Amino acid sequence: MQTTSDKEGVMNRTTGQGPWYLGIDGGGSKCRVVIVDTNDQVLGEGLGGPANPLRGMKIAIDSIMTATEQAMQQAGLEQADLSKLIAGAGLAGVNMPQYFQLVSDWQHPFAAFHLTSDLHTACIGAHRGEDGAVIIVGTGSCGLADVNGQVLDIGGHGFPYGDNGSGSWFGNQLVHHVLLHKDGIGAPTLLTDLLCAELGVSETLDIVGHFMHATPTVYAKYAPLVFAAAEQGDDTALAIAKAGAAHIENIANRLFSLQPSKLAFIGGLAYKVIPFLSRDVQARISAAQAAPEFGAVWFARAQQSKQASSEERI
Amino acid sequence: MQTTSDKEGVMNRTTGQGPWYLGIDGGGSKCRVVIVDTNDQVLGEGLGGPANPLRGMKIAIDSIMTATEQAMQQAGLEQADLSKLIAGAGLAGVNMPQYFQLVSDWQHPFAAFHLTSDLHTACIGAHRGEDGAVIIVGTGSCGLADVNGQVLDIGGHGFPYGDNGSGSWFGNQLVHHVLLHKDGIGAPTLLTDLLCAELGVSETLDIVGHFMHATPTVYAKYAPLVFAAAEQGDDTALAIAKAGAAHIENIANRLFSLQPSKLAFIGGLAYKVIPFLSRDVQARISAAQAAPEFGAVWFARAQQSKQASSEERI
Repeated sequence: MQTTSDKEGVMNRTTGQGPWYLGIDGGGSKCRVVIVDTNDQVLGEGLGGPANPLRGMKIAIDSIMTATEQAMQQAGLEQADLSKLIAGAGLAGVNMPQYFQLVSDWQHPFAAFHLTSDLHTACIGAHRGEDGAVIIVGTGSCGLADVNGQVLDIGGHGFPYGDNGSGSWFGNQLVHHVLLHKDGIGAPTLLTDLLCAELGVSETLDIVGHFMHATPTVYAKYAPLVFAAAEQGDDTALAIAKAGAAHIENIANRLFSLQPSKLAFIGGLAYKVIPFLSRDVQARISAAQAAPEFGAVWFARAQQSKQASSEERI
Repeated sequence: MQTTSDKEGVMNRTTGQGPWYLGIDGGGSKCRVVIVDTNDQVLGEGLGGPANPLRGMKIAIDSIMTATEQAMQQAGLEQADLSKLIAGAGLAGVNMPQYFQLVSDWQHPFAAFHLTSDLHTACIGAHRGEDGAVIIVGTGSCGLADVNGQVLDIGGHGFPYGDNGSGSWFGNQLVHHVLLHKDGIGAPTLLTDLLCAELGVSETLDIVGHFMHATPTVYAKYAPLVFAAAEQGDDTALAIAKAGAAHIENIANRLFSLQPSKLAFIGGLAYKVIPFLSRDVQARISAAQAAPEFGAVWFARAQQSKQASSEERI
């Protein structure tokens, strides 16, 4: 991956080369986009807020557009070029038909808009479109294996009833165990000091006030404290880390039933959870070859080719 | 307790006897009120929706007023009599200072409005104002011991980080284990059949669609399915029931540190959880002597006496 320079952007624009591809990776906490040319040369990158339509279509679209405008500026593109971008988007939540429809109905400003789940584009990115499996450990947790055209999709159902072993789950467990400690019905834990220091409070009611009505993203923000305490040998934190990792291990073992040749881990919390997985699972992990936003670009390009060849047949 | 007859209500109104007391028990799922005369004779009862200000002040006030109007009608009181009621309210959530303030600022239509937590009025009701302890297992879970002026208040912090062993917690565990089963990463469980039958769906996405953005009240609605499956010997359901009861047991043991002479259980799910508690704890449970809404009446009366005597001193 190579970041753009103004020179490339301007050159690209002035020569009028295209088409330009916009790859969108939209998760529960943030949205990453990339603009590339036909040779996958990076022209611009952008970052926006949450882009999971379950948390509100307006927020999701604002996040996508904020990130896109940032990438266009970096690429030296003008507002009018927006309608020339061929977009591919992998968004959390669109595995649910009603949200797929909601996002599909969006009157997007692009030349084309190809939509799939974030898990799908993550897998395409990780294995450059080849067969394999991927597990995302970010705000949520989920896994997908794509082998010989057979696709297995596990987890990612949402918080609090699902997404065990994810950032939101770890953050919730953290708050839960701190409150047990504060109430005198759970073991004393270093997590209490860490969370109180982070929040700048000490009273139970202030902790509760902070997390009341909290979104999964807010819980996920505090997940790293669990691993910080675990690294210092805190028993409660170690138990939480192991319980979360056990869930991710279960997802991995289920994906292995399709015998994928490769398994990649993605997401902000993956590198924290991996050390707590069994040696067997750890041994089968290989590095992701490209980020999900590139998977979204390749997904868009594959869809364009499909459309072109089906139009030719007609 | 005795329900009212029109005769009593009319008699009370026409003789102009008073003051009339309004006792309000407002929880996360529903609000119960009672109107009594000075001799605790019940003139009317009413039922409204959720009255926890954390879920919205408008909803809470609507619930209180719906229940109050119902009770007034039953008591044969007229709209104008509203301003003659001396109200006592035990509301979930007002243990948090900001919510206590919010409800206190309400421009209520009563002669007086005395506010405390639902846990406090539950304890006053259960032991007729005497020392003791109480544990509520309803939509949420919490406990309070009041012994020799020392008060210990445990749990009730809210869902999903707290309220283990409550209706919302059991409901969430139910959905969680059904999704694990559906994903092939959890043991097959009868809970899946029970939940799908209850919802009238069979697909994972439809289950998720039902609980996405669900309130604690919605989760709590399905909690009884866990106990229905446990009674049929389902291993997953039994494990959930035991884990929830273990948390309630921890609350009980913590309350015993104040050596209360009595422990009462309140709340819609209490009778389901009690059989899963240890024999030691079960042996110390005594029946609540009156419902929390009567505790709210007695709280209001005690507050009125305090005010009266402090005014006399001035």
